[in-house]
Amino acid sequence: MRSLTVEPGIPDSLRLEEFQIPSADRGSVLVRAVALGVCGTDREIIAGEYGAAPPGHKRLIIGHESLGVVEEAPKDSKLRAGDMVVGIVRHPDPVPCANCAVGEWDMCRNGRYTEHGIKSLDGFGSEFWRIEPSFVVPGTAKLGLAGVLTEPTSVVAKAWEHCERIGQRARWQPRSVLVTGAGPVGLLAALLGKQRGLEVHVFDLASEGPKPDIVRDLGATYCNGSFDSVPGDFDVIIECTGAPTVIAEVLNRSTADGLVCLLGVSESGGVRSVDLGSLNREVVLDNRVIFGSVNANRRHYEAAIAALANADRDWLHRLITKRVPVDRWKDAFVRHPDDIKTVVLFDTKAVGLD
Amino acid sequence: MRSLTVEPGIPDSLRLEEFQIPSADRGSVLVRAVALGVCGTDREIIAGEYGAAPPGHKRLIIGHESLGVVEEAPKDSKLRAGDMVVGIVRHPDPVPCANCAVGEWDMCRNGRYTEHGIKSLDGFGSEFWRIEPSFVVPGTAKLGLAGVLTEPTSVVAKAWEHCERIGQRARWQPRSVLVTGAGPVGLLAALLGKQRGLEVHVFDLASEGPKPDIVRDLGATYCNGSFDSVPGDFDVIIECTGAPTVIAEVLNRSTADGLVCLLGVSESGGVRSVDLGSLNREVVLDNRVIFGSVNANRRHYEAAIAALANADRDWLHRLITKRVPVDRWKDAFVRHPDDIKTVVLFDTKAVGLD
Repeated sequence: MRSLTVEPGIPDSLRLEEFQIPSADRGSVLVRAVALGVCGTDREIIAGEYGAAPPGHKRLIIGHESLGVVEEAPKDSKLRAGDMVVGIVRHPDPVPCANCAVGEWDMCRNGRYTEHGIKSLDGFGSEFWRIEPSFVVPGTAKLGLAGVLTEPTSVVAKAWEHCERIGQRARWQPRSVLVTGAGPVGLLAALLGKQRGLEVHVFDLASEGPKPDIVRDLGATYCNGSFDSVPGDFDVIIECTGAPTVIAEVLNRSTADGLVCLLGVSESGGVRSVDLGSLNREVVLDNRVIFGSVNANRRHYEAAIAALANADRDWLHRLITKRVPVDRWKDAFVRHPDDIKTVVLFDTKAVGLD
Repeated sequence: MRSLTVEPGIPDSLRLEEFQIPSADRGSVLVRAVALGVCGTDREIIAGEYGAAPPGHKRLIIGHESLGVVEEAPKDSKLRAGDMVVGIVRHPDPVPCANCAVGEWDMCRNGRYTEHGIKSLDGFGSEFWRIEPSFVVPGTAKLGLAGVLTEPTSVVAKAWEHCERIGQRARWQPRSVLVTGAGPVGLLAALLGKQRGLEVHVFDLASEGPKPDIVRDLGATYCNGSFDSVPGDFDVIIECTGAPTVIAEVLNRSTADGLVCLLGVSESGGVRSVDLGSLNREVVLDNRVIFGSVNANRRHYEAAIAALANADRDWLHRLITKRVPVDRWKDAFVRHPDDIKTVVLFDTKAVGLD
C-alpha cells in the first residue's frame, strides 16, 4: 500500500512510501481509503513544526480527515465489509484522565492522548489503515464525497455544543453569530449556525474567489477586507483564523453574556498591544466568556454526520475546491488563495464516487 | 435621617446630608441601617468616574453593601419588624431582558438594570432605606456584623456557581485554585474555595499586615510580591485585582480545561504587550475558558449567607479591619494599605452589635 509519510520535526520530508498492509495488532478493522482531507495541521506537520511519530518509528503516516470503506471487521462489531466510515482522530491513553475515561478524550486533561496522523499514531493518509471498532464512525454513505468533511465538522459540532453548554449558565437565546475565516472550519461553523436558525455573518480577507458566493448561498452575510466592515456586536463569535490581528478585534465584539469561541490554532508568536484594562472591565461587567475548543469525541462525529446530512449536498461539494488523485499527491500540498478544502482521492471507484 | 450622597461625575462631592425618611412609594419595606460596607466601586463613584443619580435627581445616596433591621414591612410579606436583612443591589428594568424576566438580573442583557447606590437608584448609605420585599434577603441575624459581608460574598458565590456551571461542559473535578488579590472579594473567594475542599493559593502584593495570616489561618497558601512566587498551574483562577499586569500573568497559569474567572473591575486603560498568538494557541489546544462575572441574584445572596454561616465567625470579623461610626464618616473613605473591609456603623445598638 502507498502511504504519505513525514519525519516529524524535519521540514518538507513528506513523501509517498510503499508499505505492507498493517497487521491486525494495529486494529481489528481494516479500512480501504476513499479520500483524505488536508488541513492546516497537516501543513504544520509537513513544515516540521508539529507532530510525533509512533514510538520506535522515525516516520509518521500523516492525515486525520478520513473517508474509507471497511474491508474487514470483527464479527462481533456492528461494522460490515463495504460500510463507508470515518476514523476518530484522538485516542485516550491506557491510563486515562477523568474525561478520557468516559469517552470525552477531546477534553483530555493529562495530555497523554494520541492522534492519528498527528501524535504518536499513524494517520489515514494511506491506501489502507487499521483501527479498533470503537473508533470507527459509520453512517457517511449518504454523504458521498462530503463524508470527508466529517472530521472538520466534528470539531465545529463540539464548538457549538460547548457554546450551548456554557451559554446555559443563564438563559440562552442567541440571535447573531460572527464567524471569522471562511476556510472549511469557518464555513462549516457558519452552516451549523444557520442550522440553528441564527443570523450569521462571516468575515474573511478574500474579496474574490468562491468564498463570498458560498457564504451568501448559505443565507449568511459576507464581510471582507477590513474588520470595520463587520457591523455591531454578536452573541456568539467563532474565531477560525488563529490570526492575532483578528483575535484582537473579535474580543471587542461580544454582546453582554456573549461567547467568543476560539477554534483557530495560531502559530506561536504574534505579540500585540492589548488594552487589558478596558478588555477586562468589559468582560467582567458584561459576563462575557472567551473559550478555546479543540478536537471532538464520538458524540460530535455523530452530530457532524447529522449536520452534513441536513445540508445541501451541492453546497458541501463546493467546499471541496481541489480533488487530487493520490498519484499526483504533491499537488495537494501546494496552496492557492482560492482553495477551501483540498482532498486526496484514493480508491474512489470502490464507492462509485468518481 | 442622615445619608451619604455624591453628585455623580463630580470628583470628591461626597457629603453627609439630612433628609426626610423616604415615603412608601420608594418601597414598602422600611429598613433601619446597621452597617454599610465600602468597596472599590464606591471609591470610583466618589472619584466621579462612575455612577448615576436617580432620574430627576442631581445627587445619589451611595452604598450597596448593606446590613439593616426591618422597621416596617407589609403584612403579606414574610418580613417582620426586627428582622436583620440585606438589600439586593440590582433591580431589573420594568421591560426586562430574558434573564431579568426570570430573576437572573445579574446576567442582564439589555443594560437597563438599576443598582442601589450605583446606577439610578438611591443606595443603602443612609440611616433608613426603602425597598420592595422581593429584594430583601433575611437570614443574616446569625452572622452578627459579618452579615455586612453578604453582598461581596454574593458576588463570589455567583462566580463559583458559574465556574461550576461552565466546568460541567465536561467532567469537572477541580483540585487547585489560585485567587489573585487578598482584598475582601479575594479572601471570600478563597473561603468558598476551601469550603469546596480545594487547595487554595492566594497571591497579593502585601508582605506584611493582616493578609498573610488571614490566608494561612484559612488553610490556604499565601504567595506575595512577585508572581514568580506562585507555583504551577491551576484548575480555577479567580482574578480579583483588576490589575492588567496580574491579568496578563494569570492567563498563562491555567491547566488543560482550566477556568479563569475575572472578577476584578479594572480602571480603563492598561495597555500591555500580549503574545496573542501563543495565548490563543494554548487556550484552544487546552480547551481553556476565560470569563467575567459581575453582580448576583437572590440565589447567590442565599448561597452567600449559607457560606458565611459555615465560616469561622472570628475569621470573618478579621476581614473587617476598620469600623467607622457614621459621625466620623470621612475616615471610612481614607485608605490605609492594611485595610481589608471598611464598614460604616449606623445604628448597631439596635441589634446589640457594639
